[in-house]
Amino acid sequence: MTNKDARTPVSNQDEPLNQGEESQEAGKSIGWHKAYVEGSRPDLRVPVRQVHLTNGQSVTLYDTSGPYTDPHVETDVRRGLSPLRENWIIARGDTEEYAGRPVRPEDDGLKHTSPRGGLRNLDAVFPGRPRLPRRSRDGNAVTQLAYARRGEITPEMEYVAVREKVSPEVVREEIAAGRAVLPANVNHPEIEPMIIGKRFLVKVNANIGNSAVTSSIEEEVEKMTWATRWGADTVMDLSTGRNIHTTREWVLRNSPVPIGTVPLYQALEKVDGRAEELTWEIYKDTVIEQAEQGVDYMTVHAGVRLPYVPLTANRKTGIVSRGGSIMAAWCLAHHKESFLYENFEELCETLAAYDVTYSLGDGLRPGSIADANDEAQFAELRTLGELNRIAKRFNVQTMIEGPGHVPMHKIKENIDLQQEICDEAPFYTLGPLTTDVAPAYDHITSGIGAAMIAWWGTAMLCYVTPKEHLGLPNRDDVKTGVITYKIAAHAADLAKGHPGAQEWDDALSDARFEFRWEDQFNLALDPDTAREFHDETLPAEPAKTAHFCSMCGPKFCSMKISQDIRLLHGGSQDEVEEGMAQKSKEFAAAGNRVYLPIAD
Amino acid sequence: MTNKDARTPVSNQDEPLNQGEESQEAGKSIGWHKAYVEGSRPDLRVPVRQVHLTNGQSVTLYDTSGPYTDPHVETDVRRGLSPLRENWIIARGDTEEYAGRPVRPEDDGLKHTSPRGGLRNLDAVFPGRPRLPRRSRDGNAVTQLAYARRGEITPEMEYVAVREKVSPEVVREEIAAGRAVLPANVNHPEIEPMIIGKRFLVKVNANIGNSAVTSSIEEEVEKMTWATRWGADTVMDLSTGRNIHTTREWVLRNSPVPIGTVPLYQALEKVDGRAEELTWEIYKDTVIEQAEQGVDYMTVHAGVRLPYVPLTANRKTGIVSRGGSIMAAWCLAHHKESFLYENFEELCETLAAYDVTYSLGDGLRPGSIADANDEAQFAELRTLGELNRIAKRFNVQTMIEGPGHVPMHKIKENIDLQQEICDEAPFYTLGPLTTDVAPAYDHITSGIGAAMIAWWGTAMLCYVTPKEHLGLPNRDDVKTGVITYKIAAHAADLAKGHPGAQEWDDALSDARFEFRWEDQFNLALDPDTAREFHDETLPAEPAKTAHFCSMCGPKFCSMKISQDIRLLHGGSQDEVEEGMAQKSKEFAAAGNRVYLPIAD
Repeated sequence: MTNKDARTPVSNQDEPLNQGEESQEAGKSIGWHKAYVEGSRPDLRVPVRQVHLTNGQSVTLYDTSGPYTDPHVETDVRRGLSPLRENWIIARGDTEEYAGRPVRPEDDGLKHTSPRGGLRNLDAVFPGRPRLPRRSRDGNAVTQLAYARRGEITPEMEYVAVREKVSPEVVREEIAAGRAVLPANVNHPEIEPMIIGKRFLVKVNANIGNSAVTSSIEEEVEKMTWATRWGADTVMDLSTGRNIHTTREWVLRNSPVPIGTVPLYQALEKVDGRAEELTWEIYKDTVIEQAEQGVDYMTVHAGVRLPYVPLTANRKTGIVSRGGSIMAAWCLAHHKESFLYENFEELCETLAAYDVTYSLGDGLRPGSIADANDEAQFAELRTLGELNRIAKRFNVQTMIEGPGHVPMHKIKENIDLQQEICDEAPFYTLGPLTTDVAPAYDHITSGIGAAMIAWWGTAMLCYVTPKEHLGLPNRDDVKTGVITYKIAAHAADLAKGHPGAQEWDDALSDARFEFRWEDQFNLALDPDTAREFHDETLPAEPAKTAHFCSMCGPKFCSMKISQDIRLLHGGSQDEVEEGMAQKSKEFAAAGNRVYLPIAD
Repeated sequence: MTNKDARTPVSNQDEPLNQGEESQEAGKSIGWHKAYVEGSRPDLRVPVRQVHLTNGQSVTLYDTSGPYTDPHVETDVRRGLSPLRENWIIARGDTEEYAGRPVRPEDDGLKHTSPRGGLRNLDAVFPGRPRLPRRSRDGNAVTQLAYARRGEITPEMEYVAVREKVSPEVVREEIAAGRAVLPANVNHPEIEPMIIGKRFLVKVNANIGNSAVTSSIEEEVEKMTWATRWGADTVMDLSTGRNIHTTREWVLRNSPVPIGTVPLYQALEKVDGRAEELTWEIYKDTVIEQAEQGVDYMTVHAGVRLPYVPLTANRKTGIVSRGGSIMAAWCLAHHKESFLYENFEELCETLAAYDVTYSLGDGLRPGSIADANDEAQFAELRTLGELNRIAKRFNVQTMIEGPGHVPMHKIKENIDLQQEICDEAPFYTLGPLTTDVAPAYDHITSGIGAAMIAWWGTAMLCYVTPKEHLGLPNRDDVKTGVITYKIAAHAADLAKGHPGAQEWDDALSDARFEFRWEDQFNLALDPDTAREFHDETLPAEPAKTAHFCSMCGPKFCSMKISQDIRLLHGGSQDEVEEGMAQKSKEFAAAGNRVYLPIAD
């Protein structure tokens, strides 16, 4: 998206350009800075990443990194981000503050002492400004869906319209039709609004979550900012065990992107991991607890019904969804229908009062190639379609979760069926993984399936890291997972012909053709690694101005020939002459014959 | 492919199981060994990788690693591999040894001295047994295509039939029809025959090649064995600069897989990099030089015709194929038709005399998303179709190279057009890369496209490493490239419903479901990394017997629930009881509550 576009990002050109964490870390040249596109009102400023090219042009890219990459904004994880949406929410006048549910020790898993020390470290309590939770004043839905259906274009809708470069009316229509969701809990005013729907850019979710064994609250907050730094559009906090409530508070108050959770995990903690002891009351209380904190969307496995459980008996890998197996265990223990399915309407009323978006979980998704597209999976999907219609009656925004492990030839059936059964509600898939044989590379086995299913209509992709099936992702795994999924999402945007998507590829390819190495690095999805790999084999500075690439070397350069051809057969003359004359001078300094055979 | 299969691998069970280089390195437990499936004659023994599972079963996998992983075979890179096919070739009686072309200093790029020291290090000359080159006795084609058309099933054909678990007649038919190639130069008797065609397992090629700057002959030989160790089915030696002839000799004599080259690269060396000085005579002499050494297939850019060069003038990235731009430069310099196109029939006669397989190069492939499927690309493809028919007249085996950079929605048109225009000749594609924006991750951007195009019919995939566009791949990059492409190839085998392909996934998923961690590792495409990642987060030994996975932790295990479900609702009872009783005992020792949130 070059700034030939209608809206030009507003930014002070006197300010230092370098805001790139990666640039600061590596002490590398200045390549981009944070800018804002203003909407119809002064408090509606949409962040973009503005990349400055050495040819004087600039390219603006969608930016998920939040205020952390703006040097003019002071951030302090102990205070949290400023509540960007607070005035918009208050101005609607349909919500009110209230005392809220008291936080209990068991919310942090402290009912029992444990070998690892029982009492919560009080320093961990979030120290930011005191706040009261907010909910619907009169029990009516305060959801973006309700507003859209009433024909209202909220500031949140205009914000995402600017972000996606579409008209606010398109955003309203897609939300009103249930084809898109704008997850934005009234208790999470800190977020920069974003939208999930097949008409918009494909989004990527990154899962984080503390392990009672290995990570701390600070680490989780850092993982969240790290994931959004690389392009995660939403983050799911799958924390379990100790300090689960407090960890979530820290993550929410510091997150510029919507936060999703699986309330069932915390509910299970409250009954000490004994699925059969779960009750609707404990579950609902946990949902309210999390809604008051500001969780923007919740995975609910209400589609795992008692009659479906036997359908998994002869599967190769049974039930692999944790939430799904918790509910299956409950159904089996009581031989009763799922309490989530039975109480779904009441749950809708609760979510509507905070604008929490449903992510209807696919608890029976296949966990192996052999189980893909089986009766258990599709029986649950049909129930999700039924629940989606109920949620819409209550004006609750809803997306549908999808698999899993699916071979390539069975992927399209998943998205086609889901769109048909669920009235085109946004599909949110985990991969799918296209083979089972590559543990340690499941970001790739699933990146393949993710790109394909997103091309065919999936709106958001849940990332998979190299540690899938093996262990807990560390900082590097989170980055690898996010980058891999940004590739899948962007490849899908290209295949869908999303307006403006290809401008990014074109800008990078122009830089490649014209040997603007610094521009190639700065436009890359991961500038640090691209620069580092280049510098590994080519002499640093001269090579960055050399007019050859790794496919040929200086002695014979296919790009140069192509430029001569352009010169001989039409194409702009000066773009070639000016370029080559300049490059030749620079190259004299570089010297040194280098051949780097990669591909023919 | 479990040994329920008809043929049972022959192996001495007394011998130590551990042949895995990775296992020895890591000092890890013994999980597999090299075995052989015997054909109809004692000298026809097809290697397989036999994985031994802790439940007493075993799984046999396709093996490309050559004698290096057989402890009963002594290998010495200075002597080379034993000539497995020599007697088969001699027995056909249609070839003869001859003096051969004298090796000249310029074959090793030594015509001129250079800053890096002119004279070749004599130690580098391959010291193995002296050999005379061999060629057709009477000028008739001595190709597998000629034999197949005559109705002959050669030992090579039977060998690949055993490897692919199909009947020899199917192999003969596919070769005779030109839908498959069996690259096997009469001067490369060391190879273990393999086949490339859409009816067979999708194959992967790995590119290696010395850089005058950074790598040595020994490193290239090591890169070749390393690539085949991880599953490369063929290797292309793209060496340039010094010692190009000698490097190739070392690689050929030690390679268990077919070797491909781009003769144009060496021909260009012989004219000191001045494309305009290339002549048909220099090129043909180079082809004979390489054919006598035993190169199994050669990329020939005869489709880059003078009239097509202007079609690239207004492309975003012009010509990115090195061979393509060399030929374009020649055509421009002389304003004459390509000498490769003009002399194609004579070239066919030469290749037919050694059974060198054509890989007709796509010199005008797109180098950016913007240039995909344009007129330049498809004009060349139509010419490749014409050249394919000529090659077949001369009984020369032929495959067709494909792109490149192609967005997902334009990939299928590539394979469909190629199959139509080239009479179903095997397609051999580089990726395609599905976006330009991720330098340093192009193994992934291209792995996505590779999996899709292979599903749709591409027979062999040329790998792309993380260093593509940036630098020279090192040992780790080669491994990452090969593993990524083995994933793409196997995902395609699954989607094509290739017989037996899913048995591998099923065996691994069974191991996962039954918590047989060691079996999961040993069945993995990369056992080392899978084991290493697992051990990073879970306590080593107990965790490998713990009956929980990283999605749930021990306190609540979805797999256990699934097993209970299987118990309650049919499914084998003892498989559950025996398993769970055992695991419970083991787990008592493991203790330690672990939660590893990955995906819900």
